[in-house]
Amino acid sequence: MALSDLSLEDLEKLDLTLHEPAGLDEFWARTLSAADAHPLDVHREPVVTHLTTLRHEDLSFAGYDGHRINAWLVLPAGAEGPLPAVVEFVGYGGGRGLPQDRLTWASAGYAHLVVDTRGQGAAWGSGGATADPVGYDVSTPGFMTRGILDKDTYYYRRVFTDAVRAVRAARSLPEVRADAVCVAGASQGGAIALAAASLSPDVRAVMADVPFLSWFRRALQITAVEPYTEVVRYLSVHRDHVERVLDTLDHFDVAHLVPRATAPALISLALMDRVCPPSTVWAAYRRYGGPAELSVHPFNDHEGGQTHQWRRQLEWLSALLTAPGASA
Amino acid sequence: MALSDLSLEDLEKLDLTLHEPAGLDEFWARTLSAADAHPLDVHREPVVTHLTTLRHEDLSFAGYDGHRINAWLVLPAGAEGPLPAVVEFVGYGGGRGLPQDRLTWASAGYAHLVVDTRGQGAAWGSGGATADPVGYDVSTPGFMTRGILDKDTYYYRRVFTDAVRAVRAARSLPEVRADAVCVAGASQGGAIALAAASLSPDVRAVMADVPFLSWFRRALQITAVEPYTEVVRYLSVHRDHVERVLDTLDHFDVAHLVPRATAPALISLALMDRVCPPSTVWAAYRRYGGPAELSVHPFNDHEGGQTHQWRRQLEWLSALLTAPGASA
Amino acid sequence: MALSDLSLEDLEKLDLTLHEPAGLDEFWARTLSAADAHPLDVHREPVVTHLTTLRHEDLSFAGYDGHRINAWLVLPAGAEGPLPAVVEFVGYGGGRGLPQDRLTWASAGYAHLVVDTRGQGAAWGSGGATADPVGYDVSTPGFMTRGILDKDTYYYRRVFTDAVRAVRAARSLPEVRADAVCVAGASQGGAIALAAASLSPDVRAVMADVPFLSWFRRALQITAVEPYTEVVRYLSVHRDHVERVLDTLDHFDVAHLVPRATAPALISLALMDRVCPPSTVWAAYRRYGGPAELSVHPFNDHEGGQTHQWRRQLEWLSALLTAPGASA
Amino acid sequence: MALSDLSLEDLEKLDLTLHEPAGLDEFWARTLSAADAHPLDVHREPVVTHLTTLRHEDLSFAGYDGHRINAWLVLPAGAEGPLPAVVEFVGYGGGRGLPQDRLTWASAGYAHLVVDTRGQGAAWGSGGATADPVGYDVSTPGFMTRGILDKDTYYYRRVFTDAVRAVRAARSLPEVRADAVCVAGASQGGAIALAAASLSPDVRAVMADVPFLSWFRRALQITAVEPYTEVVRYLSVHRDHVERVLDTLDHFDVAHLVPRATAPALISLALMDRVCPPSTVWAAYRRYGGPAELSVHPFNDHEGGQTHQWRRQLEWLSALLTAPGASA
Amino acid sequence: MALSDLSLEDLEKLDLTLHEPAGLDEFWARTLSAADAHPLDVHREPVVTHLTTLRHEDLSFAGYDGHRINAWLVLPAGAEGPLPAVVEFVGYGGGRGLPQDRLTWASAGYAHLVVDTRGQGAAWGSGGATADPVGYDVSTPGFMTRGILDKDTYYYRRVFTDAVRAVRAARSLPEVRADAVCVAGASQGGAIALAAASLSPDVRAVMADVPFLSWFRRALQITAVEPYTEVVRYLSVHRDHVERVLDTLDHFDVAHLVPRATAPALISLALMDRVCPPSTVWAAYRRYGGPAELSVHPFNDHEGGQTHQWRRQLEWLSALLTAPGASA
Amino acid sequence: MALSDLSLEDLEKLDLTLHEPAGLDEFWARTLSAADAHPLDVHREPVVTHLTTLRHEDLSFAGYDGHRINAWLVLPAGAEGPLPAVVEFVGYGGGRGLPQDRLTWASAGYAHLVVDTRGQGAAWGSGGATADPVGYDVSTPGFMTRGILDKDTYYYRRVFTDAVRAVRAARSLPEVRADAVCVAGASQGGAIALAAASLSPDVRAVMADVPFLSWFRRALQITAVEPYTEVVRYLSVHRDHVERVLDTLDHFDVAHLVPRATAPALISLALMDRVCPPSTVWAAYRRYGGPAELSVHPFNDHEGGQTHQWRRQLEWLSALLTAPGASA
Repeated sequence: MALSDLSLEDLEKLDLTLHEPAGLDEFWARTLSAADAHPLDVHREPVVTHLTTLRHEDLSFAGYDGHRINAWLVLPAGAEGPLPAVVEFVGYGGGRGLPQDRLTWASAGYAHLVVDTRGQGAAWGSGGATADPVGYDVSTPGFMTRGILDKDTYYYRRVFTDAVRAVRAARSLPEVRADAVCVAGASQGGAIALAAASLSPDVRAVMADVPFLSWFRRALQITAVEPYTEVVRYLSVHRDHVERVLDTLDHFDVAHLVPRATAPALISLALMDRVCPPSTVWAAYRRYGGPAELSVHPFNDHEGGQTHQWRRQLEWLSALLTAPGASA
Repeated sequence: MALSDLSLEDLEKLDLTLHEPAGLDEFWARTLSAADAHPLDVHREPVVTHLTTLRHEDLSFAGYDGHRINAWLVLPAGAEGPLPAVVEFVGYGGGRGLPQDRLTWASAGYAHLVVDTRGQGAAWGSGGATADPVGYDVSTPGFMTRGILDKDTYYYRRVFTDAVRAVRAARSLPEVRADAVCVAGASQGGAIALAAASLSPDVRAVMADVPFLSWFRRALQITAVEPYTEVVRYLSVHRDHVERVLDTLDHFDVAHLVPRATAPALISLALMDRVCPPSTVWAAYRRYGGPAELSVHPFNDHEGGQTHQWRRQLEWLSALLTAPGASA
Repeated sequence: MALSDLSLEDLEKLDLTLHEPAGLDEFWARTLSAADAHPLDVHREPVVTHLTTLRHEDLSFAGYDGHRINAWLVLPAGAEGPLPAVVEFVGYGGGRGLPQDRLTWASAGYAHLVVDTRGQGAAWGSGGATADPVGYDVSTPGFMTRGILDKDTYYYRRVFTDAVRAVRAARSLPEVRADAVCVAGASQGGAIALAAASLSPDVRAVMADVPFLSWFRRALQITAVEPYTEVVRYLSVHRDHVERVLDTLDHFDVAHLVPRATAPALISLALMDRVCPPSTVWAAYRRYGGPAELSVHPFNDHEGGQTHQWRRQLEWLSALLTAPGASA
Repeated sequence: MALSDLSLEDLEKLDLTLHEPAGLDEFWARTLSAADAHPLDVHREPVVTHLTTLRHEDLSFAGYDGHRINAWLVLPAGAEGPLPAVVEFVGYGGGRGLPQDRLTWASAGYAHLVVDTRGQGAAWGSGGATADPVGYDVSTPGFMTRGILDKDTYYYRRVFTDAVRAVRAARSLPEVRADAVCVAGASQGGAIALAAASLSPDVRAVMADVPFLSWFRRALQITAVEPYTEVVRYLSVHRDHVERVLDTLDHFDVAHLVPRATAPALISLALMDRVCPPSTVWAAYRRYGGPAELSVHPFNDHEGGQTHQWRRQLEWLSALLTAPGASA
Repeated sequence: MALSDLSLEDLEKLDLTLHEPAGLDEFWARTLSAADAHPLDVHREPVVTHLTTLRHEDLSFAGYDGHRINAWLVLPAGAEGPLPAVVEFVGYGGGRGLPQDRLTWASAGYAHLVVDTRGQGAAWGSGGATADPVGYDVSTPGFMTRGILDKDTYYYRRVFTDAVRAVRAARSLPEVRADAVCVAGASQGGAIALAAASLSPDVRAVMADVPFLSWFRRALQITAVEPYTEVVRYLSVHRDHVERVLDTLDHFDVAHLVPRATAPALISLALMDRVCPPSTVWAAYRRYGGPAELSVHPFNDHEGGQTHQWRRQLEWLSALLTAPGASA
Repeated sequence: MALSDLSLEDLEKLDLTLHEPAGLDEFWARTLSAADAHPLDVHREPVVTHLTTLRHEDLSFAGYDGHRINAWLVLPAGAEGPLPAVVEFVGYGGGRGLPQDRLTWASAGYAHLVVDTRGQGAAWGSGGATADPVGYDVSTPGFMTRGILDKDTYYYRRVFTDAVRAVRAARSLPEVRADAVCVAGASQGGAIALAAASLSPDVRAVMADVPFLSWFRRALQITAVEPYTEVVRYLSVHRDHVERVLDTLDHFDVAHLVPRATAPALISLALMDRVCPPSTVWAAYRRYGGPAELSVHPFNDHEGGQTHQWRRQLEWLSALLTAPGASA
């Protein structure tokens, strides 16, 4: 294992002029307002887990185009709410899994909403439960190139919209403090969290570990392992569509979206990360619109900070929410 | 490179009692009759290729549920028809490509129809052009597990139906001898060709090289490389769905379908094939309903016989079509 | 991914005559009675974790030769004891990690003791905290060959003794029901759990997932990946020491020890496990002395059943402990 | 897959001062004039192929030192000549294959001569048919280091001379327009085409895809995959022969030869090419003596542009040959 | 690392009926008698090595067709002869190297002749010095398929003849006891040693470690790594030449030749050998014509016994040569 | 194989300001003076080897903390002493092996002492014989991280001290010229030799091939293969200990120690070395305190110069020891 990209010193010097597309705000305004046509329609059902300190519910809501998105809601067993909440998004290929997979934030006293990524969940872990009920044009195996020839049909248009709706769903719960809904995730989950924070004014804080989907134009050139390579493979076949594909990606590039975010952020980066190279994460961190802190893991690959990072998040979030004026 | 499975001697001794599901015929009868509700609606458009000995058309027809399936029709430039025809299906991840990719059968005097596999085409070659306009439940990256929890929603239900419709479309062309429409393909293309021959009474001959999608229950246990492993990966996550998934696959297992075929077949098998292990191909060959010949490539991996095999096909098909009584 | 060893049908037919060494009982009686010379000397210290539903303590006790062994004790925050307990051992190369790594059994109402494996913890996860204060003869990188030329100096002599002492430490805690101390673990952790159950009369139940260290003589011949290969590498250099090394291993082979166990066991096995091949796990299951159940994961590698298996364990253990006469 | 070398921007800035050896022109003049001592002695024999739109001949001619070099001549079946011609050279390890492998240029109305590379053909494809009847000093497995200690004995001295003779043989055919003989090839074939265009005044156009054998001194340092590595492996053993080997290679370096070429050229380069790194191809393009166009494939490895590139070649060559004054 | 083939128990049961070709003896008689037409023509020249206990000479002799074959002759510095001698052949891709590479047998009091393998030497080690001045038909990179379409042109016909001549050269040296010339080698070197012992009546003893070139028909089917795979690759391309190639190989199969040998043999075999699988070595051992001993290395790959084996050879050979009547 | 790091031109420009720790001299003075408390206590025992030109002894001495360190002493059989001596250290994972492994320097007239590295010897070769009788804190598999949290407990503190003692032991032998004791080794052995030359005033010359353990802070960032990666893996788990670990390593960094050396040095470096990247070796060479020569192997990986380099060492050392005033 060696540095996968630039050293920290070289990151500092990196030119971060990116390729933000002209109608980015309009595109997302149009997208989200179309989603508003569908009521949230939150369903909740208790789940038997054999656990005693936590209680789980199978929660779903209407996401993009009203499609049903599934999640687990986890609460401390005897908690008197309303509680601050963490809405968590999942890494590439994973799903919300089994309820017993998700013990973390609720064990720390938060309401925890673990949201499926549509269509994903069958690559690792304990599975997903949310269909992607939309067909697509020709794609490379994986999710990265579904509908990639047009920003209106791109897979992540649906996913990011689902995420904004998940925040809204969390805010609607009686057990949750609507002014303390945070978003979190690692890798793809971190990217979705950053997107949600950029597109939702109501997010209280964002914790994004080794986020994916950032600075696509650079990532495609320097990343030799999956899943950025799905797009490279697509373009190695569809040699005529390079500009069209890059234009689509520009509208979903987290490094383009984050200047719009305002909530405090804790971002982590691993200097030996071969999946989400440090420079791409760095761009998201440096261009982030709100106050941002960075955790650097100098000797880690894409596994990043794992529980070390969660420990830091527990402290950071607790301090944030209990700071003077925090609940204002 | 070494034998990937059994030697030829051990193949001969292999027990080929398979797991054909009860309602197989009914399922396909129902599926194909539902497809009949849609007219074929063949569209044709000439294509400029800078070639002089061949002419190409961009041909499409209505496949499963009326979805538009694209193909290239290639004809010898000055041919006076009607000609015998070869309908070719493509290997996993590939598409019909560019017109200039397809010079073979028409150069030998056949009408040649190269049919896209819906949603595929962006993994290798020159691309595909046919969307798969249907959403799916959670799946592993790739096409193998799309809709796999139910035979009615499984991806290959659509693909095999498209293939039957492609044969029908070929038979409808004025340049084609309706009594001499053959099917061909390698790997996934060979499996689709065998399925088409099993489900269409009208196929004149089938040429299937190192066919995929055969004897799933064995293939999943002995194959260590993609794409059978997509299903294994799915089941490694969705540990509770083993029986449901195997039941779905049983309805699309080429080794279950081929006893229904009657057209003469030329099948090839490679003894060092790691992608489609010899025993799985052997099962399709031995259980095939019509007269079948086998080409064995003892020292090849999944590339099989390549042009050596095509040369044999050229001779075999020519002999078949010119045999006394061949056009009866 | 394919079957890594025998199919379930072939496992059933496998000859399980093993190579149990003559003085096995005497060796362990001598070893454990020497350990008895050291008082348990349990130390406990509360840990701040920012968690609310659980409380953690940093617990240590005197293991082999009085060496200090560290563990986390995790308890449901407001639990009124005494509680049934699960003593968990860790997989090869891992350590007890951070307190926040360990939320499982206590969230289900158990006292949970997560025990370090001496010297290990720096290969994955969040780290270990227990030294192995003993020097060794020449060894291959790793822990498998430390002191391997003599059963008296072998590394796992210390580790298994530490485990027996861990059970004893758990039984001594006022929060714990001494008649309901169970052991658990996966891979190396599963092997240690089986060893503890075989060497401690007081274990109430054992849950061992894809256990390691079983049927060494076969494992060394059929396993191509780490860590069994550490021993192979050792023997590829020290070609003269084969018999000596195998004799040592015979004294630590879980398949030799388990006939002595009597507590109910739930064991899991994965048919595509390349690290701990199914036949080696099967031997431990079939030779187990008490009532044993087996979970088979047909499409998994060494990750085995993960949370699916834990869910089954939660149900199995709950049923076991609440069965009529369970506390007798 | 990532950039394998420099980005396009950095290629533009690259210093292309190379290491052209002193007597390069004299060496090749001497070599080719020695070859002139042998009459071309073209043999032709019809081949049965079962194809109807094309006819194939087994053609051979006397190459270096009069050695017999085999080729396929492919013609549109009913063509009235004389036709423009494409002489094609083959990639490393391949041969002319079977006649049925070669349908491309003749289907577009050209006379097509596919020339074997002596001794090669048994690494992929359908085989070669031309011996290399010359012994060599010690070499690394492969063809790259045969006779490498002296420019007079080096393998490619024979191969490049064979290529010049192949152009001459094509020009001698009655079906061919002697003023419209072009050369083409990919990888090694592209390098041989460039060499032929540099050493033959009579070439009408050259089409070289991802050409090999260019800027050896740089390629040996930056290429980690075969076949440039054959030379590296040779030098890792014969540590004393570095200067001697580099001197030999300097005489066969396509980047040294191409300033002598004058025919229009269409060259392609792939930015993720690990076999023939972009900078080495770039050097051949930039130093090319005649008018040169470049196709860049930004997301391809050594497969380059494949049929996309052929489509471009069809258009480019057609425009070139039909331009006003083209036949002058 | 795991067993690469059969266990020792299963080797014992293996059917060793092989495919010895009809005219094998005639072929070799004819080959060797043709070689007899050339005088041995031994040249010797002292070499400066900076060593004090040994002295080296650069020795060459006329091999197949009179081609010059180079060797090192190493002698104990002050030895009073004549000495028993060991003629050593080298593993695939290696050469005699530098004189300083060869200190073993002469340090034990033997005359040591290290013989180059024609054309080889540039793949590892310190190099070779012997050309293979013969051209060949199409071949796969490497030496295994040179001239493979005919037993008369096959590469190893030359190599084995060179080896018989090397024994003769050693016997002709005044420093050497002509009745005590032994042959030795590992891998390819072991195969050549066995061939020399089978084809030369004058060999006193043979020491062959993990010999190559034995039981080709089986080796090609079960070996997944180089260099047996060179032949597989050849046949994967030249699919029509399988029988012709196997017939050629039958004439050079060490397992076919060894029944003719009579000198005592010490052979070694490694049960995890992936290059020369145990069953192929076993065949050579079991079919050996003279008295044969076997060293088994149960946990080694193709490195076999290395110095452990040499130590055994030193003892075995010393005992053999000093046995009562040994010099008769 | 490609350049693994910088080219020779770029090495010349590299900034070699390193991170030498404050109390380095004091640390080593304290360490070595503590070792002085133990008498050398050299034991010698003849070994039977069946060799005639050399005689071997099994020699041991008291190393760090009086621990017994084993070595082979090899002498020319009939040599009249006292002789110059070479003390050789071994590469990572290897041991002194069998006596028959070690024929080199004694065959050139030197007394040769081959010293075990404590605890190592079971990863390759013929084995080691020296225990490391010290326990350690948690470590990653391998030797690199044993005791790494504190310079006082670090593994290489013991190893370097053993090496200084080995030089002293060699100087004490009656067969050895005390003013002509040299040190040598490759990789880890080269690093230990450089450390010994830096910490012992009495070394006459040092020959270090592709030395390891140099410029750790850079090596950890740019090396992707073992064994530097053991430290990276440790730090990927123990994320909190980065500074502590780097501080430890600073005290054993050969590039920090060598400015203290004064004996003439011959160092080699391979430009394609992936294990010990050229820049790290370069730092040791450039910062070396005495007169230093560099051998560069431009096309070699970590195997470096092998016998080519030994030939150069034979000449270099002979010239050094016979230079006018050499024995002064």
